[in-house]
Amino acid sequence: MNDNTDTPVTVLGLGLMGRALAGAFLKAGHPTTVWNRTPSKADQLVAEGARLAPTVGDALRAGSLTVVCLTDYQAVHELLGAADSELGGTMVVNLTSGDSTQARDTARWAEQRGARYLDGAIMAIPSTIGTVEAVILHSGPRADFETHEATLGALGTVDYLGADPGLASLYDVAGLAMMWSVLNAWLQGTALVRTAGVDAATYAPFARRIAAAVAEWLPGYAEQIDNGSFPAEVSALETDVRAMAHLVEESEAVGVNAELPKLIKAMADRAIAAGHGGEQYPVLIEEFSKPTEG
Amino acid sequence: MNDNTDTPVTVLGLGLMGRALAGAFLKAGHPTTVWNRTPSKADQLVAEGARLAPTVGDALRAGSLTVVCLTDYQAVHELLGAADSELGGTMVVNLTSGDSTQARDTARWAEQRGARYLDGAIMAIPSTIGTVEAVILHSGPRADFETHEATLGALGTVDYLGADPGLASLYDVAGLAMMWSVLNAWLQGTALVRTAGVDAATYAPFARRIAAAVAEWLPGYAEQIDNGSFPAEVSALETDVRAMAHLVEESEAVGVNAELPKLIKAMADRAIAAGHGGEQYPVLIEEFSKPTEG
Ligand SMILES: NC(=O)c1ccc[n+]([C@@H]2O[C@H](COP(=O)([O-])OP(=O)(O)OC[C@H]3O[C@@H](n4cnc5c(N)ncnc54)[C@H](OP(=O)(O)O)[C@@H]3O)[C@@H](O)[C@H]2O)c1
Ligand SMILES: NC(=O)c1ccc[n+]([C@@H]2O[C@H](COP(=O)([O-])OP(=O)(O)OC[C@H]3O[C@@H](n4cnc5c(N)ncnc54)[C@H](OP(=O)(O)O)[C@@H]3O)[C@@H](O)[C@H]2O)c1
Repeated sequence: MNDNTDTPVTVLGLGLMGRALAGAFLKAGHPTTVWNRTPSKADQLVAEGARLAPTVGDALRAGSLTVVCLTDYQAVHELLGAADSELGGTMVVNLTSGDSTQARDTARWAEQRGARYLDGAIMAIPSTIGTVEAVILHSGPRADFETHEATLGALGTVDYLGADPGLASLYDVAGLAMMWSVLNAWLQGTALVRTAGVDAATYAPFARRIAAAVAEWLPGYAEQIDNGSFPAEVSALETDVRAMAHLVEESEAVGVNAELPKLIKAMADRAIAAGHGGEQYPVLIEEFSKPTEG
Repeated sequence: MNDNTDTPVTVLGLGLMGRALAGAFLKAGHPTTVWNRTPSKADQLVAEGARLAPTVGDALRAGSLTVVCLTDYQAVHELLGAADSELGGTMVVNLTSGDSTQARDTARWAEQRGARYLDGAIMAIPSTIGTVEAVILHSGPRADFETHEATLGALGTVDYLGADPGLASLYDVAGLAMMWSVLNAWLQGTALVRTAGVDAATYAPFARRIAAAVAEWLPGYAEQIDNGSFPAEVSALETDVRAMAHLVEESEAVGVNAELPKLIKAMADRAIAAGHGGEQYPVLIEEFSKPTEG
């Protein structure tokens, strides 16, 4: 898989995630330099073959690729700002969580200091780092990503999203919204059926089947959005909203939480009020694209 | 598949859905009797071989299985109440949409009149009826379902959920909550990435992948609920909620709707306030199982 395991890499930040990242580079055979504000967190990695750099500047000079994984972007600026004369010689891949504005600002900041910069987001927990299960999103100059793709591949499944450095953060929160939404809908359904004495294990395969089936509709529905045309091929919003009312009423009648059902109905009601009752569900993109009212 | 295509069936109600149901029975070879308040809606079915019954009583006598598909349960009671002396000789499968209380009440009402009764819910649109794509949920006495399973199989993929006649309605709305939640999360993500110029078609496969992956977690997470124990094996709620704050802030910063993100965070915040911050996501079942406050 990885034909460049002699590429020297640096990891700045050895929290839970940074240690997992450095460990995966070591395991893949990369000469790995590490640095952490609290140096003792490097002990185990040093025992496994990592080199502990005495300063950030030294660490930046050691790797042709530098992965940064700190608490937040403020910490990244504090750290790199103090060693910015060393930024020109390495490729910075910032895997710290943040928002798209921070990512774009930091890319500009790095560029001004002669650094090559990719922004990333880790959609994984530390224990899966180094396996295909760990999805790591990247955005920034495509050529830079391609140069380092094989090396980054030691960390997990690497995705490239585009040149805008804000994309990794945007996809990250978008993916999390999907994750929590599937979980919440499953919890809503579990709560509903438990009122009839059905246990969670009995209900789960049903929820799984629906989620997996609806996932397959998304590419087709996306075409309606890109075309800006929402013919009611499957169902019209004004038909859907009657079933949404059932969902709200049933939730209230059996005494479970009805906030998620009500939000579902409120979004559709608003689209109908805007004149889209005869159109199909994806027309709701117009409501989702508007700032929250009030 | 169907070894009993000589079973005579009756369909009461020939709206969009009733006509599709009767058409599927005819196609499978069943002697099919139909009745509708507005008789002209039977014309096409009669041309295809259906028999139009002059009265509801006559229709009920003709089928050993009677599928009812009207606007709502009130219509079902009006219709069957006027012919209740004929209910003893047929098996009523009520596929009209309603809630679990209506289903249980109607089952009791039918039982008092000597009728065998299954309640059902159609998770499909008329055009898919008669194909495996059309999922039809059933609940009520298992023996009755098994007796008629092959015949009902002419209508689509038939699911049996349990003896409580309210289950079909509960699973139906639970499944719809999952459907709309996957769609809403996808719309939220699409709205987010469109602010960076990414089109819906580019984003959709990413959303599909996350939804499909999270669907696979549900059976495992269900075990935590049934065990009533939520160890933070993957992530603790208080870690999740920081990422939820990112989702809310990013949505607000790029100017898209933030109601879904805020609801996600509000549910988790409440569970944390209740002392569950160190536990894992499925502990939210406690919040989802409580009536909405205020
Ligand atoms: N853990 C996960 O499951 C996970 C999953 C996805 C993404 N992430 C993201 O990965 C990043 C790191 O997470 P983590 O779990 O590793 O956090 P963590 O265990 O709390 O580690 C934080 C790291 O940041 C360093 N740091 C903080 N402020 C600093 C400063 N001003 N100067 C220098 N170093 C500073 C800490 O150094 P000290 O050791 O000296 O305190 C430590 O190395 C976060 O953005 C997080 O959102 C984590
Ligand atoms: N269409 C779908 O995509 C779909 C999907 C899933 C579930 N469903 C459910 O299936 C059921 C029927 O839907 P549909 O689309 O077929 O509706 P529809 O086209 O509006 O048909 C309604 C039917 O109910 C009859 N009806 C209404 N009130 C009546 C009364 N008091 N006495 C006798 N008959 C009465 C109507 O008779 P007339 O013809 O004389 O008006 C007609 O046959 C609903 O519960 C719906 O929620 C539909």
